[in-house]
Amino acid sequence: MAIIVQKYGGSSVADAEKIKNVACRLMRAQEQGNQVVAVVSAMGKTTDSLISLANEVSTRPNRREMDSLLSTGEIVTATLLTMALRSAKHKAISLTGAQAGITTDSSHSKAKITGINPERIIEEINRGRIVIVAGFQGITEEMDVTTLGRGGSDTSAVALAISLNADKCETYTDVEGVYTADPRIVPAARKIEEIGYEDMLELASVGAKVMHSRAVELGWVYNMPILVASSFNDNPGTLIHGGVPMEIRNKVSGIAHDLNIAKITVVGVPDKPGIASTIFEELADKGVSVDSIVQNASVNRITDLTFTLARGDVQNAMKALEPVIKSVGAKECVSDVTLGKVSIIGAGMQSGPGYASRMFKALSDKGINIELISTSEIRITCIIDGDKVPEAVQALHDVFELEAE
Amino acid sequence: MAIIVQKYGGSSVADAEKIKNVACRLMRAQEQGNQVVAVVSAMGKTTDSLISLANEVSTRPNRREMDSLLSTGEIVTATLLTMALRSAKHKAISLTGAQAGITTDSSHSKAKITGINPERIIEEINRGRIVIVAGFQGITEEMDVTTLGRGGSDTSAVALAISLNADKCETYTDVEGVYTADPRIVPAARKIEEIGYEDMLELASVGAKVMHSRAVELGWVYNMPILVASSFNDNPGTLIHGGVPMEIRNKVSGIAHDLNIAKITVVGVPDKPGIASTIFEELADKGVSVDSIVQNASVNRITDLTFTLARGDVQNAMKALEPVIKSVGAKECVSDVTLGKVSIIGAGMQSGPGYASRMFKALSDKGINIELISTSEIRITCIIDGDKVPEAVQALHDVFELEAE
Repeated sequence: MAIIVQKYGGSSVADAEKIKNVACRLMRAQEQGNQVVAVVSAMGKTTDSLISLANEVSTRPNRREMDSLLSTGEIVTATLLTMALRSAKHKAISLTGAQAGITTDSSHSKAKITGINPERIIEEINRGRIVIVAGFQGITEEMDVTTLGRGGSDTSAVALAISLNADKCETYTDVEGVYTADPRIVPAARKIEEIGYEDMLELASVGAKVMHSRAVELGWVYNMPILVASSFNDNPGTLIHGGVPMEIRNKVSGIAHDLNIAKITVVGVPDKPGIASTIFEELADKGVSVDSIVQNASVNRITDLTFTLARGDVQNAMKALEPVIKSVGAKECVSDVTLGKVSIIGAGMQSGPGYASRMFKALSDKGINIELISTSEIRITCIIDGDKVPEAVQALHDVFELEAE
Repeated sequence: MAIIVQKYGGSSVADAEKIKNVACRLMRAQEQGNQVVAVVSAMGKTTDSLISLANEVSTRPNRREMDSLLSTGEIVTATLLTMALRSAKHKAISLTGAQAGITTDSSHSKAKITGINPERIIEEINRGRIVIVAGFQGITEEMDVTTLGRGGSDTSAVALAISLNADKCETYTDVEGVYTADPRIVPAARKIEEIGYEDMLELASVGAKVMHSRAVELGWVYNMPILVASSFNDNPGTLIHGGVPMEIRNKVSGIAHDLNIAKITVVGVPDKPGIASTIFEELADKGVSVDSIVQNASVNRITDLTFTLARGDVQNAMKALEPVIKSVGAKECVSDVTLGKVSIIGAGMQSGPGYASRMFKALSDKGINIELISTSEIRITCIIDGDKVPEAVQALHDVFELEAE
């Protein structure tokens, strides 16, 4: 009998009706002859409510305690879903991360899975039970509860699928799969049937929020196919896997965008070794995450240093830079919080030339100015005016003919 | 350094402000030179909300799942209280029942503690931390979460106090202690300074809801003194212990009452051996708990059988009795759901005569009819008209001079 692992996100289990709907899906999967393991997130806005409670009692909640607090959200969903299944006369049992044998390191709030002992899960599925595992959590060797951070439940699900030798890991959410662009911006955006791990990683890293890159990375390392589909219908979804045919690989697979972009330019920096590192070390110390960095050509040994970052970090960054500007002898700092970025992604771009020039031409044809460019082997990203992002995404979707299958 | 165990009930931790108040109390206890362990209940109505959720997905929620679900309520309180303490720069850590080493049998929803391994708690208090334990819960040998049922957090606290060799177990709640009668009925009711385990047990068993009898029993067996006091002020409260002086023991210590009483009479029962057991076995099978039983003197080998029960059980009981009446050849069943009970309690009553007669006279002086009488070694209970209960409690409080110290 095949083991399947299904993961349901917070919006798929947001209330009692939705939980019953998930129960029906799991029963159907079992009736089709599978051994079924489900991983669940906390219901709807539960995690946010718990965080608010924590902020009411503490300005800076301790991370170990926060992990223990937040882990209850997934346990609640897991037990309710199990009750719904049992109420429909199906054998089922809920397991916490600890009971499911998920051990992690002790980096609270962003723990890494160190191992899974699937003994209990296997015992339960062999008794004919559907096993519901609380996602997002694990336990340290010292029996302390940890959470896996952003994308945690996806990571739990992929890791369990790997340790149980499942054929694939199915993740169900409130979108129908991975699209060639955000359908809210490009109405003709096409759902991608299958996509390689690399492409999916690049999409995730530049703003396609369907699945966290960490879960994709894990799937890639162990070659575990991951399905992304909707929990509200039976449409096919997107399969992320390693065996994507050449024809599909050899082109742009999608357009990603991100509206949460700002830019800071440090003006009049003396062009001497060690100055850039002074600046970026100071920012890292203050917890500011920097994205792309560009240094202009130096004139009279004076240059400008520009970098992009999330809009929410600008205030912190400007404050952190104040003393640094003085100490390195720069002139001033200017910020721009009105930016956005568009990216084209595709493993095929590595071998085929001309993708960058086609992208730049498409943007310039629309009169869109490119502020910054950054690339990886399979991605080209342009920072542009935030207001122009929707137009840019649509233009790139047209130029790279993503509408057609 | 002395170890103290304090327990805070749901109303004492109902919101962020109350949790901060409890944090202050714990810090003060530590600053007075104690090693402090606190046991907490779920916040306010949390448990009720979780039960409602369960009822939305299942008409008869599975008990193992319900335990896992409900256990999250106490974990939430424990983590929030710990965050509040840490936010006030005190060392603190929360522990789930499992982490605190509380093992139980596997009777879900009413598990019994089988042992406590206090190693982790001792390690943590020796590091100078205040340890906050989620009450009401434990874990089986198979790592399944259990809850201890009604009065569970009190039981957790007393059990922990015993295993840690604490001097006493302090339980804090929204009342100031144990009273000679319900202060809402008898405005002059006096707070009892100290009371023996036996008296407290009898008070609890007949409706004084300050502390569940199970926790008192445990305290009695291990001779662990239990303080009952308010979490909202520093008034002294009531100490339940074994060494209550003779003078205090040798009299009535309190008046308890209960308005949730009904009576069923099976009329015209043939007075033959085995018939009563047939009737009461049938009721037990249907989950109906019977309190007192009285059989009238038999006339022509025909008798009436009367018993009391909770008002909520009457419908079930009447239904269960229908077939039995026919099979044993009784005439009919009649019920009365308008009853109440009053009890006088006191270890001294064993040795001093005349308590019963003084009680009956006090009631008859007020024109109150006694429907049924039941007694234990240290308790006399009268079933009377429910409407007359307040008057009866007041009269008994006067007659036995409980107002005066």
